[in-house]
Amino acid sequence: MEETFVPFRGILNDVKGRIKCYRQDWIGGWNAGYRIFAPTTYIFFASAIPVISFGEQLDRDTNGILTAVQTLASTSLCGLLHSIIGGQPLLILGVAEPTVIMYTFMYDFAKNRDDLGPKLFLAWTGWVCVWVAILLFLLAILGACSIINRFTRIAGELFGMLIAGLFMQQAIKGIVGEFRIPKRDDPSLQEFSTPWRFSNGMFGLVLSFGLLLTGLKSRKARSWRYGAGWMRGLIADYGLPLMVLVWTGISYAAANDTPAGIPRRLYSPNPWSHRAMANWTVIKEMRDVPILYIIGAFIPATMIAVLYYFDHSVASQLAQQKEFNLRKPSSYHYDLLLLGGMVIICGLLGIPPSNGVIPQSPMHTKSLATLKHQINRDKLVKTAKSSINNNETLGQLYGNLQSAYKEMESPLRFQPASSRVLKELKEETSQYTSADSVLSGLPVDTSVFDPEKDVDDLLPVEVKEQRVSNLLQSLLVGGCVGAMPLIKKIPTSVLWGYFAVMAIESLPGNQFWERILLLFTAPSRRFKVLEDVHAAFVETVPFKTIIIFTLFQFVYLLACFGITWIPIAGVLFPLLIMLLVPIRQYVLPKFFKAHHLQELDAAEYEEAPAMPYNSAMREAESTMEVLRSPRQDVMRSPLRMEGGGSPLPLSPVRARSSPKRVGTSDAEVLDAVTTRSRVEFKHQYSPLRMIPDSSSPGS
Amino acid sequence: MEETFVPFRGILNDVKGRIKCYRQDWIGGWNAGYRIFAPTTYIFFASAIPVISFGEQLDRDTNGILTAVQTLASTSLCGLLHSIIGGQPLLILGVAEPTVIMYTFMYDFAKNRDDLGPKLFLAWTGWVCVWVAILLFLLAILGACSIINRFTRIAGELFGMLIAGLFMQQAIKGIVGEFRIPKRDDPSLQEFSTPWRFSNGMFGLVLSFGLLLTGLKSRKARSWRYGAGWMRGLIADYGLPLMVLVWTGISYAAANDTPAGIPRRLYSPNPWSHRAMANWTVIKEMRDVPILYIIGAFIPATMIAVLYYFDHSVASQLAQQKEFNLRKPSSYHYDLLLLGGMVIICGLLGIPPSNGVIPQSPMHTKSLATLKHQINRDKLVKTAKSSINNNETLGQLYGNLQSAYKEMESPLRFQPASSRVLKELKEETSQYTSADSVLSGLPVDTSVFDPEKDVDDLLPVEVKEQRVSNLLQSLLVGGCVGAMPLIKKIPTSVLWGYFAVMAIESLPGNQFWERILLLFTAPSRRFKVLEDVHAAFVETVPFKTIIIFTLFQFVYLLACFGITWIPIAGVLFPLLIMLLVPIRQYVLPKFFKAHHLQELDAAEYEEAPAMPYNSAMREAESTMEVLRSPRQDVMRSPLRMEGGGSPLPLSPVRARSSPKRVGTSDAEVLDAVTTRSRVEFKHQYSPLRMIPDSSSPGS
Repeated sequence: MEETFVPFRGILNDVKGRIKCYRQDWIGGWNAGYRIFAPTTYIFFASAIPVISFGEQLDRDTNGILTAVQTLASTSLCGLLHSIIGGQPLLILGVAEPTVIMYTFMYDFAKNRDDLGPKLFLAWTGWVCVWVAILLFLLAILGACSIINRFTRIAGELFGMLIAGLFMQQAIKGIVGEFRIPKRDDPSLQEFSTPWRFSNGMFGLVLSFGLLLTGLKSRKARSWRYGAGWMRGLIADYGLPLMVLVWTGISYAAANDTPAGIPRRLYSPNPWSHRAMANWTVIKEMRDVPILYIIGAFIPATMIAVLYYFDHSVASQLAQQKEFNLRKPSSYHYDLLLLGGMVIICGLLGIPPSNGVIPQSPMHTKSLATLKHQINRDKLVKTAKSSINNNETLGQLYGNLQSAYKEMESPLRFQPASSRVLKELKEETSQYTSADSVLSGLPVDTSVFDPEKDVDDLLPVEVKEQRVSNLLQSLLVGGCVGAMPLIKKIPTSVLWGYFAVMAIESLPGNQFWERILLLFTAPSRRFKVLEDVHAAFVETVPFKTIIIFTLFQFVYLLACFGITWIPIAGVLFPLLIMLLVPIRQYVLPKFFKAHHLQELDAAEYEEAPAMPYNSAMREAESTMEVLRSPRQDVMRSPLRMEGGGSPLPLSPVRARSSPKRVGTSDAEVLDAVTTRSRVEFKHQYSPLRMIPDSSSPGS
Repeated sequence: MEETFVPFRGILNDVKGRIKCYRQDWIGGWNAGYRIFAPTTYIFFASAIPVISFGEQLDRDTNGILTAVQTLASTSLCGLLHSIIGGQPLLILGVAEPTVIMYTFMYDFAKNRDDLGPKLFLAWTGWVCVWVAILLFLLAILGACSIINRFTRIAGELFGMLIAGLFMQQAIKGIVGEFRIPKRDDPSLQEFSTPWRFSNGMFGLVLSFGLLLTGLKSRKARSWRYGAGWMRGLIADYGLPLMVLVWTGISYAAANDTPAGIPRRLYSPNPWSHRAMANWTVIKEMRDVPILYIIGAFIPATMIAVLYYFDHSVASQLAQQKEFNLRKPSSYHYDLLLLGGMVIICGLLGIPPSNGVIPQSPMHTKSLATLKHQINRDKLVKTAKSSINNNETLGQLYGNLQSAYKEMESPLRFQPASSRVLKELKEETSQYTSADSVLSGLPVDTSVFDPEKDVDDLLPVEVKEQRVSNLLQSLLVGGCVGAMPLIKKIPTSVLWGYFAVMAIESLPGNQFWERILLLFTAPSRRFKVLEDVHAAFVETVPFKTIIIFTLFQFVYLLACFGITWIPIAGVLFPLLIMLLVPIRQYVLPKFFKAHHLQELDAAEYEEAPAMPYNSAMREAESTMEVLRSPRQDVMRSPLRMEGGGSPLPLSPVRARSSPKRVGTSDAEVLDAVTTRSRVEFKHQYSPLRMIPDSSSPGS
């Protein structure tokens, strides 16, 4: 994206780009069939549970003026609007923790003013929203999002870690709270007697750790060794929601022995109560707000606008990372404009506004990558099987696969990434067929090409980019308002476990996190990192540089985390993160060599330095590539121990698949790629043992 | 061991064999230094905790006539005797669950007899013990243990699984019990009110699952990626005892909020109380037992004798499996004779006798294998380092390693296994030096041979066979009697967690268990088993045969497990397991092909059938062995990313190390070998894809 500040140009570009694929956004989603429900439910839970919990937090902090009903309504409404008329449909909207913090601060300010008070609180926030919207409009129109390229990994990942930290903090606070008497409740109730409080806390520990452990395990079900494939797939896709149900069920197992309040369940207001109607009168009341407060509303509005500008853009950016090979264009400016519109609507309705959320947005993309992989896989496996049944040769089989893959491509091609992917398959195909001189004339059987296993190696990471999953999840979130009586049955402790799951699930793939782990890795164990899929910097940047860079980032994270604890200044934390952009651009290059910085935190505005290239070693590698092949067949051959031994000798057909991927199957490969995927270059043990200091002089 | 039934011959052979290494048994243990404390504490906890818990069970079931003090005293006394004058010092003695079941049955019988009653109960059991001892003497003298070779894997592993099942049952029963009011306690106590009972149960769940999860994790610390090596080693060695301390500490964290009885802690009698003195008068009282009961005592005695004969021998057998490469001889007959003597002593003292226990005995051997590995490793690493410092060549280095290894050998050589091990190292050495034509003249540096990593690959599995660890752990168990006030602080729920850990730790390496897992492995995932270290049968026996064999064994296990639930007939379960010996010998060969049976359950009395040998494939393998080597160097090279690049090109030096072991270090390799080690032949993906049906006609 070019950096242009010509008014409206960014918005127009976005609209032009997205309008071309708008129709396909719906058709593509529709064509996915029932499978779209896996990412939908996954994201629905990831979206609804925090929103409900934030609603409860607001409920406490605003004396019931804002509740979970309002946060759910806002999330659903904004989600619906965004999924239908938004730019980037991968972006998930919701009421986020920073919004809750801001609203709490504003309530604390308003409640003690005689000419404002709790009564006019919502009307006043209406004015704040108006200001926020105006600021967002200005930012969008003036092309502020075109500097998104300056938001490098360092800022985005630090923000991601901060959110993960806040989620984990919420989980811990929540569990500790299970041992205490909630503020708003009557301490003389039976369930708050010492033994029952203790029971509740212990039960809470069991439920939240139960959800945490089983939830994390279930997400990895695809790579389990036991159980049928369809079952493992089902558990991996729906495991988390399922576990919420299971642990809610378990929480009822003790119902006979315990009073009604053990374990504590969600407190939620009746959405059809009289007070809930108060929201519709906010517009009228806005006229009653004194003019001084209308002007003063500009102050919190600037902070919220900065927050939303940053949060919305970074969430969108993290949902569109390079490794996902997206084909449809981004839409930062238009989405920010739309956000402004939604902020006004929310303000006038007296509900807290939603914005793009982390980690749900990248989680959404990941789950759609898994979906796309499954769809592609099924079609290719079918093609390969029919080729085998028709006794075709390996060359024909690959030809069929290639044309099947072409057919699956969406009719519109928006970015060069797509043709690159296709070219790769083509190259792979020609290599396979030419290398395979022995077999080319003979019909293929499953000992040579096993569709169930070998198709996975051919498929690149792709994402099912469409609007249906976002639309459906928004509808489901809206349905939660009506389903409050059911939602109330979920124990709060299960919620805390869910927060912990979300925090942990957001970590893999975050290079900042992986560098922190690297610091704690024993020196004698660092080779393990190299054996695994890993980012390029591990091999090309000296360890000492990695340490210094990571420590700097970690201290900065602590500062950001610390500032959220300060009662009022806490809302300034987005500014602190924004500050990282100029620091990265002007300060860090003074302390780190250019090519190290480029490896650790690639910035498009910096030119990539030439990589040293050791041709002798390169050659050695390609030789090995050939030598390696027979061995891999050996590694694979025992798989078919029952396959009724083929009469063919094992041949060097599978030369291309990397050693690590040999033996993995199903979407497991994809799981590995998408969950550890925020790396620009994937390396599996590379033969190049470069010590960068000796290669280029640096800056 | 030959099958001879000439009286006393077995005992004499045993004594002759063990007397030769008796001195070395003590010196060797002493030389291990402080390191001996790792296996000692490990086994002490594994031995003491069940014994304490069985003591509590007896306490309830015999109305306090027998308590944890007596079970501890018996375990300690018998352990001391066995470690000093016993034959096989790897065997761990203790009061076992079957003994508890037997004593409970005898008490139920005795308590309602007018001329016996609780008062003469211990005196009567004294007579039972006398009979048991006489029977054991007869069995030992007549050479009954020489049929130990007929106790094949099928019986031993089924028994191991049964014990694991009983331990797990105890864990589950225990946790469920935490929610209930214990029988012997006063239900009107505050801690037994509904809320506190519920609190206690939930707290119990937290503590036992906490111990279970952290305990299992800590045992694998050696292969962790994070933390310093010495710390990981410490955690792996002492993790379980440490976790017992940690979770006991955590159980006190809630002490301010809860009454004294929450969580429940061990109930234990005062060992210095008046009643504890009653044991010394048992001999006197034996004269008061009516003659009819003295004769009748023969009936339970036969059952106990069969049980002890089987249990003691199988525990000893499992502690001396082939894969451990033991060098010192076995001592089945002499140990059985000694057991008879100990049974009499226990009987006269009125304490329940001890016998060889599972899974502690094989656990003991495994921990000593780890110890031996560490000792050998340290010495070889030191030798290699000094060679490198002296700029010696690789040939010299291997020569030095070999002579250092020879020195470490105990001066006595008892079994050919030892020379085999040495020969292997020799072969490896000569292969390394001859293959290494490029390097042989040049000094070695750590990029060619890294002592810290490469020594592990050279070391075979060996066991530190000595008496010190057994002696020390017996003394510690004895110390428990005095330390009762401290032991009382352990929550019972931590105990239940410990039972679960023991059950789970005993499973890996049990082929029966691994076959059960194989049944549940999805067909598309079976190749994963082959990629891992696995037993030969996986490749050489058709899957269907494995299923049938395993199902048969599983149904048999269920029958054995079921019979333990039947109140009085339950004590017959050893007979059911003994019955497997003739079934294996005479019935199974009718249903399974001889060479399949040999793979699944090797019996020395059956001759191994000739293995089909496909020379073409064999050749292919050896070719690959050479081809594979450069790639492995590549896999390893990134390890030394900071090693200051060596000027030497990477050479095919490490051709021998198998791909799977590449990159593992420390004693981790050994952990893998010893915990999955009850396989005769280890295969990593073998290139031979045999379908046995087509190779030999079978029986």
